[in-house]
Amino acid sequence: MADSIHTVVTLSGGMDSTVCATLAVRELGAERVAALHISYGQRTEARELRAFGEICERLGIRRRLVVRNQALSQIGGSALTDTALAVPEAGPEIGTHVPVTYVPFRNAHFLSVAVSWAEVLGAGRIMIGAVAQDSSGYPDCRPEYYEAFNRLIAAGTRDGTIRIETPLIALRKMEIVKRGMELNAPFELTWSCYSREDSACGLCESCTLRRRAFEAARATDPIPYAASPIR
Amino acid sequence: MADSIHTVVTLSGGMDSTVCATLAVRELGAERVAALHISYGQRTEARELRAFGEICERLGIRRRLVVRNQALSQIGGSALTDTALAVPEAGPEIGTHVPVTYVPFRNAHFLSVAVSWAEVLGAGRIMIGAVAQDSSGYPDCRPEYYEAFNRLIAAGTRDGTIRIETPLIALRKMEIVKRGMELNAPFELTWSCYSREDSACGLCESCTLRRRAFEAARATDPIPYAASPIR
Repeated sequence: MADSIHTVVTLSGGMDSTVCATLAVRELGAERVAALHISYGQRTEARELRAFGEICERLGIRRRLVVRNQALSQIGGSALTDTALAVPEAGPEIGTHVPVTYVPFRNAHFLSVAVSWAEVLGAGRIMIGAVAQDSSGYPDCRPEYYEAFNRLIAAGTRDGTIRIETPLIALRKMEIVKRGMELNAPFELTWSCYSREDSACGLCESCTLRRRAFEAARATDPIPYAASPIR
Repeated sequence: MADSIHTVVTLSGGMDSTVCATLAVRELGAERVAALHISYGQRTEARELRAFGEICERLGIRRRLVVRNQALSQIGGSALTDTALAVPEAGPEIGTHVPVTYVPFRNAHFLSVAVSWAEVLGAGRIMIGAVAQDSSGYPDCRPEYYEAFNRLIAAGTRDGTIRIETPLIALRKMEIVKRGMELNAPFELTWSCYSREDSACGLCESCTLRRRAFEAARATDPIPYAASPIR
């Protein structure tokens, strides 16, 4: 079936997931790609949802699922979902410990939805833009986590054949920027900031990792920032 | 800390999860047990939520979390979440194939919530009343699935030490009835039926497995059934 869904992509609307979705569309054509977005009560959920819709439009992805996860904000324990915890500005120590922006076991919630949807769609592959290097040090962004998830899928689905792929996991952020530019990924539509929805703060971990990546790639980040200097 | 939460129990309100919760409370005391219930758009969700509340009251469990999962009903693909698919009456072939009541990758959604909550509570153990024998043949009720989930937790949480335990997984349903009676589990408050909320239908897979179990244990099931004969 030429128009059956081959791959489910998780698309938060940040730069990594957008490069990942662009990769899938360039490989397969937009009609064989389905995009999943999850709002989970994170501070910037409205802005990220807008980015998701605009990126899907640009890439031509029509098969979309937007899910509201209530559990993560009910449970809290992260600066992204609990407004009583401040989003820290980035320091030089990014990636050396698990930061307060870690949302406990978050990616398992997202991947569970992706697997359920893939099973019903008959899609054999899930792509997620997880990055291990140049990352915030989240335990659920490491290669061994995805290997373990694939074993879980093999044990716990009807025919056990769906596979998660993480095409960016071993790349530096700077390489992701370069790859995205080669693919004409719509970076201008993406949203990475953890704390603001009007213009990106430029100071949080996520903004900092992104700005360093564009600088290292000698590229211009097309989105505006509220703060000028890169940490 | 005498009153810190030691164990998170997933409690649907059916007979297996109720025996599991009773086990945890008899072992630890109710103040060290937290109970998680997930409504996911299943046909009998209101009745199951009522059972959850009544069972927690009876067992003395005060720390509770009720989460609404929207993804599973949005995705569909199961007779439990899609009213276009009929809940079948049970036949002799229960457990020989994956039935239409299978909710794709459902238990991963539930366990993800349990792990996130346990991580924030500081609880080291999750208990779930999964049963492999005498079951409907769901792939996510087998021991190897829970072994894989424990490896996922080790790879994807902050300190990797939370463990899922499945104390009933190797028991026959009849043995679960006997164990529940020894523990004084409140079977009269439980709800197992897949299709009705007034009185249990007595004919679906879940009712049939339950009725056979009580009969085999030479015990009286305290809940009323709409249909008299056991399949």
